[in-house]
Amino acid sequence: MTMRDYYKANRERFLSELFGLLRIPSVSSDPAHKEDMYACARKLTDLLKEAGADRAEVFDTTGHPVVYAEKIIDPSLKTILVYGHYDVQPVDPIELWKSQPFEPEIRDGAIYARGANDDKGQSFMHIKAFEYLVRNGLQRHNIKFILEGEEEIGSPSLASWAEEHKDLLACDIILVSDTTMIGEDVPSINCGMRGLTYMEIEVTGPNKDLHSGHYGGAVVNPLNALCRIVDGLIDADGHITIKGFYDDVVELSKADRELLGRAPFDLDEYKRFLDIPEVDGEKGYTTPERTGIRPCLDVNGIWGGFTGEGAKTVIPTTAHAKISMRLVPNQDWRRIAELFAKHIESHVPKGVRVKVTTHHGGNGFLIPISSPAYQAASKAIQEVYGIEPVPSRGGGSIPILAEMQQILKADPLLIGFGLERDTIHSPNESYLLSQFEKGMESIALFYKYF
Amino acid sequence: MTMRDYYKANRERFLSELFGLLRIPSVSSDPAHKEDMYACARKLTDLLKEAGADRAEVFDTTGHPVVYAEKIIDPSLKTILVYGHYDVQPVDPIELWKSQPFEPEIRDGAIYARGANDDKGQSFMHIKAFEYLVRNGLQRHNIKFILEGEEEIGSPSLASWAEEHKDLLACDIILVSDTTMIGEDVPSINCGMRGLTYMEIEVTGPNKDLHSGHYGGAVVNPLNALCRIVDGLIDADGHITIKGFYDDVVELSKADRELLGRAPFDLDEYKRFLDIPEVDGEKGYTTPERTGIRPCLDVNGIWGGFTGEGAKTVIPTTAHAKISMRLVPNQDWRRIAELFAKHIESHVPKGVRVKVTTHHGGNGFLIPISSPAYQAASKAIQEVYGIEPVPSRGGGSIPILAEMQQILKADPLLIGFGLERDTIHSPNESYLLSQFEKGMESIALFYKYF
Repeated sequence: MTMRDYYKANRERFLSELFGLLRIPSVSSDPAHKEDMYACARKLTDLLKEAGADRAEVFDTTGHPVVYAEKIIDPSLKTILVYGHYDVQPVDPIELWKSQPFEPEIRDGAIYARGANDDKGQSFMHIKAFEYLVRNGLQRHNIKFILEGEEEIGSPSLASWAEEHKDLLACDIILVSDTTMIGEDVPSINCGMRGLTYMEIEVTGPNKDLHSGHYGGAVVNPLNALCRIVDGLIDADGHITIKGFYDDVVELSKADRELLGRAPFDLDEYKRFLDIPEVDGEKGYTTPERTGIRPCLDVNGIWGGFTGEGAKTVIPTTAHAKISMRLVPNQDWRRIAELFAKHIESHVPKGVRVKVTTHHGGNGFLIPISSPAYQAASKAIQEVYGIEPVPSRGGGSIPILAEMQQILKADPLLIGFGLERDTIHSPNESYLLSQFEKGMESIALFYKYF
Repeated sequence: MTMRDYYKANRERFLSELFGLLRIPSVSSDPAHKEDMYACARKLTDLLKEAGADRAEVFDTTGHPVVYAEKIIDPSLKTILVYGHYDVQPVDPIELWKSQPFEPEIRDGAIYARGANDDKGQSFMHIKAFEYLVRNGLQRHNIKFILEGEEEIGSPSLASWAEEHKDLLACDIILVSDTTMIGEDVPSINCGMRGLTYMEIEVTGPNKDLHSGHYGGAVVNPLNALCRIVDGLIDADGHITIKGFYDDVVELSKADRELLGRAPFDLDEYKRFLDIPEVDGEKGYTTPERTGIRPCLDVNGIWGGFTGEGAKTVIPTTAHAKISMRLVPNQDWRRIAELFAKHIESHVPKGVRVKVTTHHGGNGFLIPISSPAYQAASKAIQEVYGIEPVPSRGGGSIPILAEMQQILKADPLLIGFGLERDTIHSPNESYLLSQFEKGMESIALFYKYF
């Protein structure tokens, strides 16, 4: 029996179980939902046991609980660890939802609910593919699940929990469906994500707000100084000027760039979608390369002085900016934080003082296209979609995956079945039933070819 | 009876009347205080009538009301028009005030309140000097008062109101106390002020806030673009790069620079007072010259993106800056606004759009040291302080005075009794009682010698 046939025979039950999960408002950022997190975790262990896990437990962490489950059939076989998360984003602005976020409903071939895609819907596919393998005697690997409840708040507890339980989690590959593919007609596999270093700088000038008439021209203005510092971080060619910043950047071969370039990309449509007159960035790279394989630096927030209505002629005492850098393999986020601080400290404009603070960060990661896991996923997806998936590089970060990679010494493989249209994190999150079905089929075939 | 004796005899009443004025939160930039502006204007007409004005009225304008008062004793005598303003700056950041901004209090020989100096305290000295002259039969000039409620927002209504009422306001000299002197032991008379052009720029990028992971590096970030624009406005030598900006700047002769250089100035003390490591500004000029005779450009406020606690990886749709330029004779503020806009428009970074708005402005002005009014003021101040006042050039701007000068064909004379320590426009604005007293004495003597 194929996964497709198994789904057809069990469709109503599958959807009823998924809807049961979606009805639990497991919003991790809101303390009011603490009990819902446990309820959701317990429901997942029930589903995993029913699917065939020998063991399925809710583990306490310093934050929300994690769900662990496994079915070990032979320690000498390869072990796959499925990672997912059962927590969801807040639902505001609630008034923009066409149906209740925690009352799932099917419209136009898609499930609408908070978490329909991210990541309850996508994690659920893995539970059902696992059930299919077990019940049909097709399981040929040891399979483990780790489903966390804090992904949407930056996974503050998982890394230390995983470190303590690394024997339990030991695996050959971390399998994840928590991303999108380019399109239903352009299946893709995410073979890397960027890392992140998030900094803040504070520029201090005079010890009191000054009247710009009395002091303007003679006292260095922290706002002007901040702009000078920020502007100096990127040169006219879009290169980051921080000394040593590119030292560890993995430069892709021409062949690899060509392979990544196969992913269809329509620059005019991109500009129209964002309503921008032009794109711009690091010289010598295309737009998808600029977000996929190259690091970047962005001011995420800036403030200082008088920002109300009207006009006030002030030279303020301080100016602030939040600045983040997206990193690529093999940049180490902590080293980049140090280089950033060193750069700023050696470029302080005359007349002001500067304080640099590190917020947080995480490393990026890559999975080689030539690896058996990538190849198995590629073959599986090609069989289901009838098209060879293109490798893509996500510009965003799932910092916990880079940490899990280091702790478990296993590569993550990201096969996501979400689409842009699903508007995760926004009102009316949805997940196409066709993608739900094809996702389960692809996962089942991955186990066949890996 | 001298002014000093009159003050001694009436000290409690003077302070109680002034405190009554200071308790009215006449913040002109905040629409919520519209009624307070009227209340303050009415209180001033009451005070002027009690002081001896034959006529004292609140006039409506297109904005906040103006107070006009007069006592004409003989049309053939010289007429002095006292200019002042009763509106005050906002009080933010309120948490830095040691006492409530609108609950005046005397500490260490100074009055602490918003407006204690700028300009309720200083205007009030003129009302009391006028009262002294009238009640002691010493008035030898026609005396008029114009007290406006929009100085802190750039006097948008006064010029056209003055144009309509120029016969009413006709005078030989415009007498103003709205500035500082160099020090209690270095009295000075302001013989020129800088002009002002106040602009705002808005940089627009994508039509929605973007996730900096997905788009960072490929989409131009309005915050980075804004920093680039601002940084480009001043070169490494501190020169403003706007084409044509310096065309009309009056370059002072070596002799004039030497005369102005006589005003004592202690750079170490200046740096210590402001707690700054260094001063910096336009190359080739001293610190007093940079604020006195040279134009400058300052960012007065900047904002955009995520400015709360913690970190958010956003590329925002817009970024904003308020930028003002201080001008010197003979720069025309409207021409400078045009040149600024033209410069920005021809320096828009690729990938963003920029909107430039003019807030307001005014021209600078100069009064000759040889004029009878300057000489009378000099004699008066020397008598009170025991030291000949030095001529100084104020870095600040009272743009309306340049306009009033043109409308009324009368020079403004600026005898200010504020001190640096008063921190006008900042928290804990204050006004020394000793300066309040000496100010009234100097004003009374000015009438004697003019």
